[in-house]
Amino acid sequence: MAESRSDRLTTRSAGERSLWLNADGASISVIDQTRLPHEVRIATLRTAPEVANAISTMVVRGAPLIGAAAAYGLCFAVAQDASDASIATAVRLLQATRPTAINLHHALREMAEALAIVPLDERREAAFAHAESICQHDIEINEAIGRHGFSLLNAAAPESRPVEVLTHCNAGRLATVAWGTALAPVYVAQGAGRAVHVWVSETRPRNQGAALTAWELRDRGIPYTLIADNAAGHLLQRGMVDLCIVGTDRTLPTGDVCNKIGTYLKALAAKAHDVPFYVAAPSPSIDWSLEDAMSIPIEERSRDEVTFSEGANTDGEPTRVRIAPEGSDAANFAFDVTPAHLVTGLITERGVCDASPVGLRHLFPERFTHD
Amino acid sequence: MAESRSDRLTTRSAGERSLWLNADGASISVIDQTRLPHEVRIATLRTAPEVANAISTMVVRGAPLIGAAAAYGLCFAVAQDASDASIATAVRLLQATRPTAINLHHALREMAEALAIVPLDERREAAFAHAESICQHDIEINEAIGRHGFSLLNAAAPESRPVEVLTHCNAGRLATVAWGTALAPVYVAQGAGRAVHVWVSETRPRNQGAALTAWELRDRGIPYTLIADNAAGHLLQRGMVDLCIVGTDRTLPTGDVCNKIGTYLKALAAKAHDVPFYVAAPSPSIDWSLEDAMSIPIEERSRDEVTFSEGANTDGEPTRVRIAPEGSDAANFAFDVTPAHLVTGLITERGVCDASPVGLRHLFPERFTHD
Repeated sequence: MAESRSDRLTTRSAGERSLWLNADGASISVIDQTRLPHEVRIATLRTAPEVANAISTMVVRGAPLIGAAAAYGLCFAVAQDASDASIATAVRLLQATRPTAINLHHALREMAEALAIVPLDERREAAFAHAESICQHDIEINEAIGRHGFSLLNAAAPESRPVEVLTHCNAGRLATVAWGTALAPVYVAQGAGRAVHVWVSETRPRNQGAALTAWELRDRGIPYTLIADNAAGHLLQRGMVDLCIVGTDRTLPTGDVCNKIGTYLKALAAKAHDVPFYVAAPSPSIDWSLEDAMSIPIEERSRDEVTFSEGANTDGEPTRVRIAPEGSDAANFAFDVTPAHLVTGLITERGVCDASPVGLRHLFPERFTHD
Repeated sequence: MAESRSDRLTTRSAGERSLWLNADGASISVIDQTRLPHEVRIATLRTAPEVANAISTMVVRGAPLIGAAAAYGLCFAVAQDASDASIATAVRLLQATRPTAINLHHALREMAEALAIVPLDERREAAFAHAESICQHDIEINEAIGRHGFSLLNAAAPESRPVEVLTHCNAGRLATVAWGTALAPVYVAQGAGRAVHVWVSETRPRNQGAALTAWELRDRGIPYTLIADNAAGHLLQRGMVDLCIVGTDRTLPTGDVCNKIGTYLKALAAKAHDVPFYVAAPSPSIDWSLEDAMSIPIEERSRDEVTFSEGANTDGEPTRVRIAPEGSDAANFAFDVTPAHLVTGLITERGVCDASPVGLRHLFPERFTHD
C-alpha cells in the first residue's frame, strides 16, 4: 500500500468519490480512514492482498465501499492470473476480511459469476469494467436514496428551523463510493437550501462518528454536534431530534437490520419517544437469502479497540491511550441487530417502504417471484 | 491539594474506605479518581475550596462520596471561621460544584441545620462529628444495600454458573465512603462464595466504567469484561445478562431515577428483553421534594470531554488524545432520567421496593406523613 498525503483534498460536491481507479488502470486510491480526522492521506492499492488488508484494518470501511474495493481487489488478482483457481482464491481471501456486511459477499459473487462465462483472455478487461459498474451503481443508488430520504427529512420539521437529524457511525460519503447512504439526504438538503443540524454519535469503540462523520460534515460545512453514544436517549427524550437515519451492513427481507453496534439502543429510544427511525438501505445491503436475523454472523474485533482509544496528541500525531487497567478483559461486538418493528421505514433506491416483507415486496417484486 | 503516590494501596475488604480523616484531625484523604486506573494516588484536602475543586474536577466523584467530601469541606470552613456567614459562604461554594446529585445538597443542608443550633465555640467539634456520622451512615446504608441486593442477584441465575451482572458508570466503593451501592451486592456475593461476572460499560465521555469500575473489580479479584457503551443492547438481546444494577444521582418519590448519561438506554434495552433493571438507591439519594423528573438540573460539562479521550500512553503517563476534528462542536450532558416504569425495583437500605410512591411509602412511611 503506497500512501501520499494531501491536506488540500478538494471535496467540492457530495458526489465526489472516496475510491477511484488511477490513470495507470492497475491500482485504486482511497482515503485512508484510519488517519481521519487528523490527516487526509490517500492510500493506493495494487493487489488483492493489499485490498484485503485495507479492508481488515479499516483503511477502507463502510458496507458499500468495502464491496466496491473488494471488486477491484478481484480485478487485481485477475490481472495477475485470470484462471478460475486464481479467482476462487482471491474471492476467499477478500471474503474472509469482514463477516457481517453482505455487500462484500454480493460484490464478489457478482464479479465471480460474471467472469465465469468470459474467456480467459478477456477476463481482465471484463473484471475492471464490472468493478467500475459496481461503483457507478453505488453512486446512482445513493443519489436516489438521497432524494427519497430528503422528502422525509424535509417534512420532519417546520421549514422555519433546521431539521434535527440523529445518526450513528458513518454512513456518509466515506462509507460509499460517493454521496453516502444515511447522509445522502443531508447532502441533498444542503443542495436544496434546507437547513439541517446533525447529532453525531461518537460510535465507540472505533469512533467513526467522531472521526469520520464529523470530518465529512465539517468538510461540507454542515452544522453538527458531537455527542457521546450514551447521550442519544437523553436527546430523544427531550425532543431534540426530529428523525434518525442510520446505515445498514445487512438488511433482511423481514425488515430486520444489522448495523454498527449501538444502533439498536438508538432505535429503542427513538421508538420510546415516537421519533421516526429510518434505515438507508441500498438494495446491495439486502441479504435476500436469510430469514433469521439472529443467524447473521456478528464480527468480534480485537479487545484492544475497547481498552484503548485512538486519536491525535497535541502535536497532531496518531496516539493510542489505554483507558482500562492493564490486562482487562473486554468484548468487542462490532454490530447489533435492530428488529423490524423499531424501524419506521427503509430508504431504498426505489423509494421508502415499510421494514417488512410486504414493504420490500412492493419495491422489489422480482426478488419474491419464487413463492 | 497535596498528593502522595501509593502503588501498594492495600484494599483488603470491600468495607475499606475511599475517604478518611487523617490523624491530624484537620484534613481528609481520598483516592484521586482522575489518576485511576493507571496510578493509585492519594489526594489530601485541607480547605473548603480544595474540596470544592476536587469535586468539580472529579478527583472526588460519586453521589454518596461527594456528599461526604462536602461535609468535610464545611468542617474545614468552620475550623477557620465558625460564624453563620462563613458557613453560608462555604455551603454556596460547595453546593455550586455539581448540580445533579442530591446527596451533596442533603449533606450540606444537614450539616448547616445541625450547626445552626450549636454555640460558636462548639461548632468545630460538632461539624467533624457530624461529617463522620454522615460517612458512617453511608457505610451502613451500603452494607445493607449489599445484603438486600445479594438476594436478588443470587436468585437471578442458577447456582451452577456465575450470575451475569451489567452495570454502568461506577457506583462501587470508589463512589462511596465504602462498599459502593450498585456494586455492594457483588462484593457481598464474593464474600458469600457466589460466582459473579460483571459486564462493565466504558461510560463515555469520562470512562468511569473502564477506569474505575474495572479497577476496583480487578483490585478485588472479581471477573469482569469491559464493553463499549454501545454493546449493552446486543448483550441483553442475546440473553447474556441476568440482571442490571446501577446507581443513582437523584431518585424521585415517583420512582424516576436520574443517573449517569447512558443509564436510560440500558434500561430501555433491559425492559425490551425482560431483564430485571435494579437501581441501588440509598435514601440520601432520594429528593423527597421533587415530583417532576424533567425539572432535575442536568449538568452539562466541557465539550472537551467528548472531543478528547483520556488515558495512559505507552509509558503509563496521563495523555489526552483528540478524537474529533479540531473545533468540533459537542454537547456533554452528564446525566439522564430513567422513568420509573423501566425500573424493576429500588434497592434501598431498608429493603427492595417498587420504583413508585407506593413502594417508597412502604419503606419510608415517615416521609409521607404530610399528606
